[in-house]
Amino acid sequence: MTSPLSGIAASTGIAIAKAFRLENPELTVEQQQVGNPAEEIARFDAAVAQSAAELEVIQQKTAQQISDKEAAIFGAHLLVLSDPELIGPIKERISADSVNAEFALQETSDMFITMFEAMDNEYMKERAADIKDVRKRLLSHLLGVKIQDPSMIDEEVIVIAEDLTPSDTVQLNAQFVKGFITDIGGRTSHSAILARTLEIPAVVGAQNAMATIRNGQTVIIDGLEGKIIIDPDSATIQQFEQEKSAYDAQKAEWAKLKDEPTLSADGQHVELAANIGTPKDLAGVLEHGAEGIGLYRTEFLYMGRDAFPTEDEQFDAYSKVLKGMNGKPTVVRTLDIGGDKELTYLDLPKELNPFLGLRAIRLCLEMPELFRTQLRALLRASVHGNLKIMFPMIATIEEFRQGKAMLAEEKAKLLEAGIAVSDSIEVGIMVEIPSTAVMADVFAKEVDFFSIGTNDLIQYTMAADRMNERVSYLYQPFNPAILRLVKMVIDAAHKEGKWAGMCGEMAGDDIAIPILLGLGLDEFSMSASSVLKARAQISRLSKQEMASHTDRILALSSSQEVEAYVKGIS
Amino acid sequence: MTSPLSGIAASTGIAIAKAFRLENPELTVEQQQVGNPAEEIARFDAAVAQSAAELEVIQQKTAQQISDKEAAIFGAHLLVLSDPELIGPIKERISADSVNAEFALQETSDMFITMFEAMDNEYMKERAADIKDVRKRLLSHLLGVKIQDPSMIDEEVIVIAEDLTPSDTVQLNAQFVKGFITDIGGRTSHSAILARTLEIPAVVGAQNAMATIRNGQTVIIDGLEGKIIIDPDSATIQQFEQEKSAYDAQKAEWAKLKDEPTLSADGQHVELAANIGTPKDLAGVLEHGAEGIGLYRTEFLYMGRDAFPTEDEQFDAYSKVLKGMNGKPTVVRTLDIGGDKELTYLDLPKELNPFLGLRAIRLCLEMPELFRTQLRALLRASVHGNLKIMFPMIATIEEFRQGKAMLAEEKAKLLEAGIAVSDSIEVGIMVEIPSTAVMADVFAKEVDFFSIGTNDLIQYTMAADRMNERVSYLYQPFNPAILRLVKMVIDAAHKEGKWAGMCGEMAGDDIAIPILLGLGLDEFSMSASSVLKARAQISRLSKQEMASHTDRILALSSSQEVEAYVKGIS
Repeated sequence: MTSPLSGIAASTGIAIAKAFRLENPELTVEQQQVGNPAEEIARFDAAVAQSAAELEVIQQKTAQQISDKEAAIFGAHLLVLSDPELIGPIKERISADSVNAEFALQETSDMFITMFEAMDNEYMKERAADIKDVRKRLLSHLLGVKIQDPSMIDEEVIVIAEDLTPSDTVQLNAQFVKGFITDIGGRTSHSAILARTLEIPAVVGAQNAMATIRNGQTVIIDGLEGKIIIDPDSATIQQFEQEKSAYDAQKAEWAKLKDEPTLSADGQHVELAANIGTPKDLAGVLEHGAEGIGLYRTEFLYMGRDAFPTEDEQFDAYSKVLKGMNGKPTVVRTLDIGGDKELTYLDLPKELNPFLGLRAIRLCLEMPELFRTQLRALLRASVHGNLKIMFPMIATIEEFRQGKAMLAEEKAKLLEAGIAVSDSIEVGIMVEIPSTAVMADVFAKEVDFFSIGTNDLIQYTMAADRMNERVSYLYQPFNPAILRLVKMVIDAAHKEGKWAGMCGEMAGDDIAIPILLGLGLDEFSMSASSVLKARAQISRLSKQEMASHTDRILALSSSQEVEAYVKGIS
Repeated sequence: MTSPLSGIAASTGIAIAKAFRLENPELTVEQQQVGNPAEEIARFDAAVAQSAAELEVIQQKTAQQISDKEAAIFGAHLLVLSDPELIGPIKERISADSVNAEFALQETSDMFITMFEAMDNEYMKERAADIKDVRKRLLSHLLGVKIQDPSMIDEEVIVIAEDLTPSDTVQLNAQFVKGFITDIGGRTSHSAILARTLEIPAVVGAQNAMATIRNGQTVIIDGLEGKIIIDPDSATIQQFEQEKSAYDAQKAEWAKLKDEPTLSADGQHVELAANIGTPKDLAGVLEHGAEGIGLYRTEFLYMGRDAFPTEDEQFDAYSKVLKGMNGKPTVVRTLDIGGDKELTYLDLPKELNPFLGLRAIRLCLEMPELFRTQLRALLRASVHGNLKIMFPMIATIEEFRQGKAMLAEEKAKLLEAGIAVSDSIEVGIMVEIPSTAVMADVFAKEVDFFSIGTNDLIQYTMAADRMNERVSYLYQPFNPAILRLVKMVIDAAHKEGKWAGMCGEMAGDDIAIPILLGLGLDEFSMSASSVLKARAQISRLSKQEMASHTDRILALSSSQEVEAYVKGIS
């Protein structure tokens, strides 16, 4: 038994299986003179066509098996393949210098990759990653080197890789891939998120897995603790098989709660809802017994394409979700782009601090036609279910009033045109900017509900970019300042007979849940896979008892003190 | 009388004088082949030496007549002249292509300017502006074209220019230059700030001044309203001379308050202090009758040079300020760099959202030797006056405790070494992050004072970059959310017997002053030139009456409502 490795627990669960190493293919390129550049260009065109055909298959498969959101990655790759600003210069290089296609591809794409990576912009950095991924595929065709195809795995394995590209991960068949380990990446890396969606255990950032683990070695992944054990002895295997059974039993126990209401130990009901990105996520919502959708992020509809979605396309998506939810509450957030989320076809000026820039509702109010199109699609879809509309990034009451006025105008126009619109649409706001939490009493008189967006609320309240590792120690969900703001929002809502929910990551956190229950939060919205676990936890907690701790918790001086206190009472 | 122009009122006051146009020199460069590149390089070296000599004179003159902060601009220009990465390639170009020095300079510097301007970084954009300014000087020597020298103006004029470069502005002699008008620039442009420092009226962003105004025409600048009148008739001149007299009389009235205490109409004392950047600013502080220094921004000591200032250099600066203040309270803010303030010699990684990044105290705690050096210099200087130390960008109580512990350790070491340290140094924090305002009650138990930094507090509370024009409508000092946070801070301080000040721009604002007086703010720190006006305003206000409005103001729903309310009561 080799000494254990460890890494970041990226997706829970325990897996025991043989290792399958996903090697990086050898794609070395040498410069060669070619006699007939036109022939070389034809060879390059063939590689482009082959790659495009492959990508279309992968894109389709991904949309079916995973989600539109993941499939959009391959839409972006296809755009790279058809981008004349990249493909043109490669062909020019071939004919101008009579060089081989591999070399022209390598040199030209290097230039773009270097340029994009140097930009101070996450979006452009992603474009660099896309070009790299596409180049790998093109080179494999040009060089006749076969890239290892993870979709061909047909026995139970744990995949070991330096890193998994988006195209690798979506080809993993969850029937055979029992878990995976990567040397690089963090809890929010693409592969980690995908592991949680697929519900297979994963440890990322293990650093030495590729250097240590051989093909076929037995490996245990403990995705609860982030541990990796290589060549375990039989006693260790037995121990982990017991742990795995216990974990599976717990999951089975949670599954029984699927059709149960969410009740605290003292019989108080709260609503457990799920966050979704596309209509494809509906299956997970229903399977995990969520009582509603607390956050439908509509921006995915706008991404991975080259023009705005039409009103009808939007109407179809919203209707599908509302029908699927069959009358259960469905909170749809209007378009939240800008900041770290950009659209290729919307050329916005660069901002020095995009998180403090023209985002979300700010952008929508500046581009009213964009916004009104979405509002019309939502209003038309409203007759198909229990729609609640939520505006993101509201900082002032004027913004809310403007948004609501536009909604009322569009509704009046639709009714006048004889188009049916539901009469009971609630209109609320995300509370994710400190000013809005502080002014919650004023907002509560005019909104129908609040949903606290903790990811942004924490970053603004602590003035610490949540994506910046150098200040990640300040991203403190349990800082009493955050909890006090949450309390202001909940109290303000209740005073006006409105409801308050939370749709940030905090809503599903097991330290946060007892506090939030005690503060009187009405709705907890989280990733669908966390719903049953949260329901089980809430069933063990007395709301009244938790409420009795609130004053003491809010008087504590630091995040650490809050965490320690909550661990002591729950 | 030509129809009037208008622009942005950048510096108050009224001036009537003849126009002096500051023309851009003709510096057209043509490519020429040279027979002897070595001779051409020598000619280039001579231009570099002449420019450097000029810049040293200007730098010195600026340091004496204006401030070290302004002089630092020319330090940056001298660095450009001695930068081998710029100068080297120019000379290589001359010898490689046998071209004239002007052409090599133009081509090479264009490349750097384009590169720096394209970067998504204010600091690099400033470097591009520096290179342009230095190139203009070098070309004038190479081409033998004389740049108009604004320091030679020897009669009373109003300067008209497309824009004023830093080197132009510092050469303006306030004895003769009665005001200036520029076609471009905003209220916070370099030239606007300098006009306020020099206390001469200025209108910037006038757009058509250069196109409209001829040399020698009589011009009236109304720096109160941002109006420009060209060729006024005698009635207009008379009217503005009366307005100028009224304004001068008001200033004279304010000047009488120089040695008066700051008392409200109902006899309550508050402290009016000044913000400074360098010891050179002391003269203005004393001249305008400030009762203390509420913010000494020490970062200027670190800027415009190529290494950290030594402990002794810092000790000298701090001692000079403390001695000059002669026992009056002097709040020194520890190093606040990062964000939009970078140091050339401190190579920090680029951040996607620098305003939410590793800045100020965060950086100091990560670079303890840098921080401890400053703390030692402050402790040693403390015996020369009434020192109060303030940490910027505190977000959590742990940060304050860490900073305070380092201070205590350095103090103990100094005492052990037999070095005298004051026993009555107060240690406080800037409140500029929402979490800290919300947690003020917890902080108040451990700090000696608070100083509210409104510039940052507003931008974080509203989640709107204060430098980003696209969201500037959200930079709302009078949003009730800001006022509620200010109240939390003041109340928390008073409950623990501590004092609360404000050192953001808001402290000197005439709409803010009545509200802040009513909220019980103890200390108002502003630019020195605003102190007397504020003292006059406070003498007309009853603190008790203003306090009676507080609850109503804080219950208003928007910034506009607050402004309207305050205009109605004060």
